[in-house]
Amino acid sequence: MQLYIGNKNYSSWSMRPWVLMKQTGIAFADVMVRFDSFQADSKFKATLSQAVGSGPMTVATPGKVPLLVDNGFVVWDTLAIAEYLAEKFPELHLWPADMQARARARSVCAEMHSGFSALRSHFPMNIEAHLPDIGARMLAEKADARADLARIVQMWTDLLGAHGGPFLFGHYSTVDAYFAPVVKRIVTYALPVPPPVSDYVAAVEASAGVVAWTKQALAEHDFIDFDEPYRKSGVSGESGE
Amino acid sequence: MQLYIGNKNYSSWSMRPWVLMKQTGIAFADVMVRFDSFQADSKFKATLSQAVGSGPMTVATPGKVPLLVDNGFVVWDTLAIAEYLAEKFPELHLWPADMQARARARSVCAEMHSGFSALRSHFPMNIEAHLPDIGARMLAEKADARADLARIVQMWTDLLGAHGGPFLFGHYSTVDAYFAPVVKRIVTYALPVPPPVSDYVAAVEASAGVVAWTKQALAEHDFIDFDEPYRKSGVSGESGE
Repeated sequence: MQLYIGNKNYSSWSMRPWVLMKQTGIAFADVMVRFDSFQADSKFKATLSQAVGSGPMTVATPGKVPLLVDNGFVVWDTLAIAEYLAEKFPELHLWPADMQARARARSVCAEMHSGFSALRSHFPMNIEAHLPDIGARMLAEKADARADLARIVQMWTDLLGAHGGPFLFGHYSTVDAYFAPVVKRIVTYALPVPPPVSDYVAAVEASAGVVAWTKQALAEHDFIDFDEPYRKSGVSGESGE
Repeated sequence: MQLYIGNKNYSSWSMRPWVLMKQTGIAFADVMVRFDSFQADSKFKATLSQAVGSGPMTVATPGKVPLLVDNGFVVWDTLAIAEYLAEKFPELHLWPADMQARARARSVCAEMHSGFSALRSHFPMNIEAHLPDIGARMLAEKADARADLARIVQMWTDLLGAHGGPFLFGHYSTVDAYFAPVVKRIVTYALPVPPPVSDYVAAVEASAGVVAWTKQALAEHDFIDFDEPYRKSGVSGESGE
């Protein structure tokens, strides 16, 4: 299987399936598609169509990462990729085994999938940076950013209480891969979270998939201007390397 | 089971699980939560907490519709509700039976779940209205609206070609419920679509779940000012009743 992803430093959607597969030992190769090339679209589509060759692509893809190619068959969108992997590798129990826990896991992933727009726009994932000043300022100025963070803290606290940790449903699951980019934002922007959420942040940071992704993100050195306003303006942009 | 929904005329997310359950014969009662009351939040939360009583709510809900309560257990977010129903009623085959078709179905639902923001903002669902002038103007003025509509047409054309219609994966599935609000927008704003997409629009319009929802939406007469600019400005707001 090949997983098409964006830059590791920035692409939070790419991070989710990559971390899930790495953490659970699913074999795959990743293919990086630089942000500006899939925005331009044509280069990405050419790369992809070369990769899938004459495979059964019954539907043109939306031209976005992440995108999983399994022996020529294309699955796109993070949540659909997660469901596909859960079906293909039932022995890995990527979703919780209990039906109600599984439904709850899908509820919180779907909520992440379509929501938290303030969190995503005010605190874009940027693994190599350390931006506590921007974090503090955004939390002070933006009520929607505070509300999103409060919802994350409430949700994680409830789940850790219900299932006993160290991960949100006890054992590692798709949900922890889904929230890994939120953990990276909490770290980059030094967002204040109480225990047991801070313990969970530490557990995700120490998990094998996230450690591997972070290491490769820091080695990437491939910065995108439009995502790096602090590099130009000089605000609080210490490197995390 | 109880399904909490917003106004039937406007709430495209509520429409999806409602139509799916009605079409496939799953028994449920709906509970309407008026848009302004769940925006204010407290009334909705009070209604909900009364409904679920002392059920196993291990996680506070996000306070949004749609939301399914099954014997006190709460499932939220449209995609998670669809997965829960598919697991609870395997005999209904709410997802396509073939694994690759099922993966493709989840890809297009997840793409709808997180994307098409131009379609959603420029053509808000408004079942009782007939707004061809607004439709034509938005398509002329907004490149992102044209791109979203083109993607819908491409995706549906490919799927109808691959599976032979009349629904996107041949037989009726969750996917058709997922795109039902897009069909309603195409009708309300008279968006131009070629065959076989126009045939698919007609098939969804004639499906039992959509017919029932539409009838109740037209009987609702409970209009929300902020979603009805044309009622104030006098532009092209013929009623569809």
